[in-house]
Amino acid sequence: MDKNKIAIIGTGAWGSALANVLLKNNHNVVMYGINQDEINDINNGYNRKYFGNKKFHNFKNLTATNNLTVTLNNADYVILATPSSHIKTMLKEIQKVLNYRKINLINVAKGIDSESKNFFSELIYSKFRKNLKNMATLIGPSYAIEVFENELTMINVVGRDINFLAKLTKVFNNDSFKLVINKNEKGSELFAALKNVLAIGVGIISYSNKSKNTQSAMLTIGVKEIHKIYKSLFPELDDEIGFELAGIGDIFLTCSSNKSRNFSFGLDIADKGLKEVLNNQTKTVEGYTTAKILEKIIKEKDIYVPFMTNIINVLYHNKSPFKILDFLEEY
Amino acid sequence: MDKNKIAIIGTGAWGSALANVLLKNNHNVVMYGINQDEINDINNGYNRKYFGNKKFHNFKNLTATNNLTVTLNNADYVILATPSSHIKTMLKEIQKVLNYRKINLINVAKGIDSESKNFFSELIYSKFRKNLKNMATLIGPSYAIEVFENELTMINVVGRDINFLAKLTKVFNNDSFKLVINKNEKGSELFAALKNVLAIGVGIISYSNKSKNTQSAMLTIGVKEIHKIYKSLFPELDDEIGFELAGIGDIFLTCSSNKSRNFSFGLDIADKGLKEVLNNQTKTVEGYTTAKILEKIIKEKDIYVPFMTNIINVLYHNKSPFKILDFLEEY
Repeated sequence: MDKNKIAIIGTGAWGSALANVLLKNNHNVVMYGINQDEINDINNGYNRKYFGNKKFHNFKNLTATNNLTVTLNNADYVILATPSSHIKTMLKEIQKVLNYRKINLINVAKGIDSESKNFFSELIYSKFRKNLKNMATLIGPSYAIEVFENELTMINVVGRDINFLAKLTKVFNNDSFKLVINKNEKGSELFAALKNVLAIGVGIISYSNKSKNTQSAMLTIGVKEIHKIYKSLFPELDDEIGFELAGIGDIFLTCSSNKSRNFSFGLDIADKGLKEVLNNQTKTVEGYTTAKILEKIIKEKDIYVPFMTNIINVLYHNKSPFKILDFLEEY
Repeated sequence: MDKNKIAIIGTGAWGSALANVLLKNNHNVVMYGINQDEINDINNGYNRKYFGNKKFHNFKNLTATNNLTVTLNNADYVILATPSSHIKTMLKEIQKVLNYRKINLINVAKGIDSESKNFFSELIYSKFRKNLKNMATLIGPSYAIEVFENELTMINVVGRDINFLAKLTKVFNNDSFKLVINKNEKGSELFAALKNVLAIGVGIISYSNKSKNTQSAMLTIGVKEIHKIYKSLFPELDDEIGFELAGIGDIFLTCSSNKSRNFSFGLDIADKGLKEVLNNQTKTVEGYTTAKILEKIIKEKDIYVPFMTNIINVLYHNKSPFKILDFLEEY
């Protein structure tokens, strides 16, 4: 396997998990961070904030730095793994360093940017095109901790240039981590975004209902509604994306475990009420902001999706979380 | 709501759970059984074998008997809820009682008859057509105990006559149980059959791998392969059945819990070895017999489904359960 230099922007859980995959494959990894404690920790072979005392593979090939120029210098691939809310700022900083240099970018921000209402891939194409050699997005069922611990994980690598995607499978894939190529960029991102809204709904229901029958039914209703929204927005695209890792794979993961932030957010809303949960929220809950965007889409396109609509109504229109299933009276 | 007389053939868990739904809706229910203890128990308002001390709703409207003539007499609907292996014998007995009388039949046997290699609905049409007014099949994510306990459950009611299906929703539906109409009989039955094979595979993997990433990935690979087999067998049918309650709904339920017999069977194979498990097996494991039929289909139609093929190889060709994922080397 060719040895590449791979830059990772961000020192969070997912960036670090991907670093560990790449280190296992003997690549050189440079991580860019802003917190000096985290940088030191990584340079000692750990990311204790997320992974405790578990060490990176081949950590002699890993460096962390707060110097963006060093990070980007000669990088064969750049993984953009900052929180979604910082992407635009980060792209600008990267652009300053690159000037007219072009890079191969791997984006891990999924879903819809709440400000521009664009998918993150569209946002990157529009803001960053002059610096792009190629771009791909990673989407699929993947808890970072499980990736870090070498549990078998399979996710989609999505983009427009199939040769680039194929090259990435060679860089990333090993016995416990597999990228699976998919070309349906918009479909993948739509499912990735809307699954977070669904997860909030399933979380709300799970608070008073632990039944597997109910959970399976509501997951199914949710997937059908997301597929319906997808068909309404992109009638020209394929019917298969829902069956992909970026579709039901990610939905299954996100909606069936309180390890998911959106799912827990739903549970908490049913437990403590929306106001209290929002007041105590420190991190962005993607499904919450996406729900607002979804509401506009549903209205503009006049799509009948009663479950998603009820989730939106709980989040934005004072509907009681305990009435989230009242749409079934007409079902 | 009209009050109907509904005959249920069989005193098992699923028949009893459906009885409880119908009793809640104030119908009269007669259950046909062969075990006098079970019949007595039901006549006292219980099915303790499956549901302990939980009582049927409105049990004054419930009778159990070993007299098939009484059971079928004036029945508006007949639910066939005997074990799949007894269906042919049971249909003959029913035919003797009916002679030329026609009935509305609700079939709950899902999947493929191992002897005739037909879907159960086809088997019933071919053996029983002269006695059929109408027929429908119930398929979807539903543990009997949860239905008995009024947990919200949604499943598909599948058949050829949409008016009949609509009538059944009026008979069955209430605040905790919903039939959702679907006309894709073959698609539903194919997914229902093959999900059991997949569940064995996911069970085998779960023995040595508790990772949610892995489970989500393998579920997705499985659904994609089942969808591929479906498209190969029935290219003329719709693309949506996989997204239905009878599709991913049932797959979520069956593949994610050791309450499922096929899933546990897989776990046991990894734990104790196939031979010992088969020697100690008392009940039919549907996925095991379906896997043999699936092997023939895959060969005849030349369908590349490496995960399902590996499951078949573990079950019938001495492949080690710990090598079930070796197809990923080429993925």
